[in-house]
Amino acid sequence: MMSNQHKIPQATAKRLPLYYRFLNNLHIQGKSRVSSKELSDAIKVDSATIRRDFSYFGALGKKGYGYNVEYLLGFFRKTLDQDENTPVALIGVGNLGTAFLNYNFTKNNNTKIEIAFDADKRKVGNTIGDIQVHHIDELEDHLDKISVAILTVPVSEAQNITDRLVDAGISGILNFTPARITVPDSIRVHHIDLAVELQSLVYFMKHYPLNDDEDI
Amino acid sequence: MMSNQHKIPQATAKRLPLYYRFLNNLHIQGKSRVSSKELSDAIKVDSATIRRDFSYFGALGKKGYGYNVEYLLGFFRKTLDQDENTPVALIGVGNLGTAFLNYNFTKNNNTKIEIAFDADKRKVGNTIGDIQVHHIDELEDHLDKISVAILTVPVSEAQNITDRLVDAGISGILNFTPARITVPDSIRVHHIDLAVELQSLVYFMKHYPLNDDEDI
Repeated sequence: MMSNQHKIPQATAKRLPLYYRFLNNLHIQGKSRVSSKELSDAIKVDSATIRRDFSYFGALGKKGYGYNVEYLLGFFRKTLDQDENTPVALIGVGNLGTAFLNYNFTKNNNTKIEIAFDADKRKVGNTIGDIQVHHIDELEDHLDKISVAILTVPVSEAQNITDRLVDAGISGILNFTPARITVPDSIRVHHIDLAVELQSLVYFMKHYPLNDDEDI
Repeated sequence: MMSNQHKIPQATAKRLPLYYRFLNNLHIQGKSRVSSKELSDAIKVDSATIRRDFSYFGALGKKGYGYNVEYLLGFFRKTLDQDENTPVALIGVGNLGTAFLNYNFTKNNNTKIEIAFDADKRKVGNTIGDIQVHHIDELEDHLDKISVAILTVPVSEAQNITDRLVDAGISGILNFTPARITVPDSIRVHHIDLAVELQSLVYFMKHYPLNDDEDI
């Protein structure tokens, strides 16, 4: 089953971290089983989608019993490599970057920001949420163990910094700038454009007035 | 054609603001036509997807010519109701909220944060990015013209504030807290969980090493 992991549809893959987090909370609360209906209510994904997703993992719920929390959790932990920590660099310590440092993914996560960079000398040397801010000129000196970067720099700097990250061996970028950055095919970029997210919400409010879709 | 708007697949609908923004930039630069290849390179959506999306809008590209920028722009402007402004309230002026106020969706957008709220009295009365911060106790007094709220409050406050927003007549919420909030079916919530986005990026890096998917 694990060898077929790469066959999981990408839409399903996108929901894995969400499932993992919720099941881990249930486990902490001492719950041993959960129905697709309960899951659906909690994470706002319709239960048919949850059942289809879980069937890809070989997890088949039993009628009147639901799913075994520990089995699912074990599966998700392996799949998401929860035991393996992924160190992350934050580039750009403005308001958004500072929010990331203070938040810093402490719960149920295998990702942690280990280092931050900014071009503003007044910020360099500061510690925010336990993470020290380094000068952007030193970027290449500190990335040897880092594979992921969160990009929260001004638009005008986005491509230049991206090129430096790629040259330094980064393989994934979470891009929070409005810039659409260009990278080689071997680098994965996920792009979250806050303006587009807001505009999309407004569009859906007008055209799909009822919440009857899958989680998007 | 416009009457079939609600038939546009949701995945396509999600890309509309992205198309709109890019085409508007082209228009400002004086370009009158664009190929699906150029669009694809710029916004990182594969060209087959773009052609399929555009066919839903009745826009058929001509070989060797591409698409007419002005026609598309006129269509998107109508579809996204660009001429109609949607006022937005920001709830929670922490680092993330402050980032939103400074950014404030000024370019190519029909959405604008008009008012902000926080529980911290030291922030009340301040003006950030031209927007005044009001006390959260006054929430219900200022929402009569507002239909959309951005939620950047602590997790512990998320559901309580959501209930108040719903009672005050808000119909859409962009939820940036890790909390999965509960609302009536008539309220649309889009949820952006930063930890889940990061975990998802790491998962995709490990399991889909090449960037051969659609824009996600």
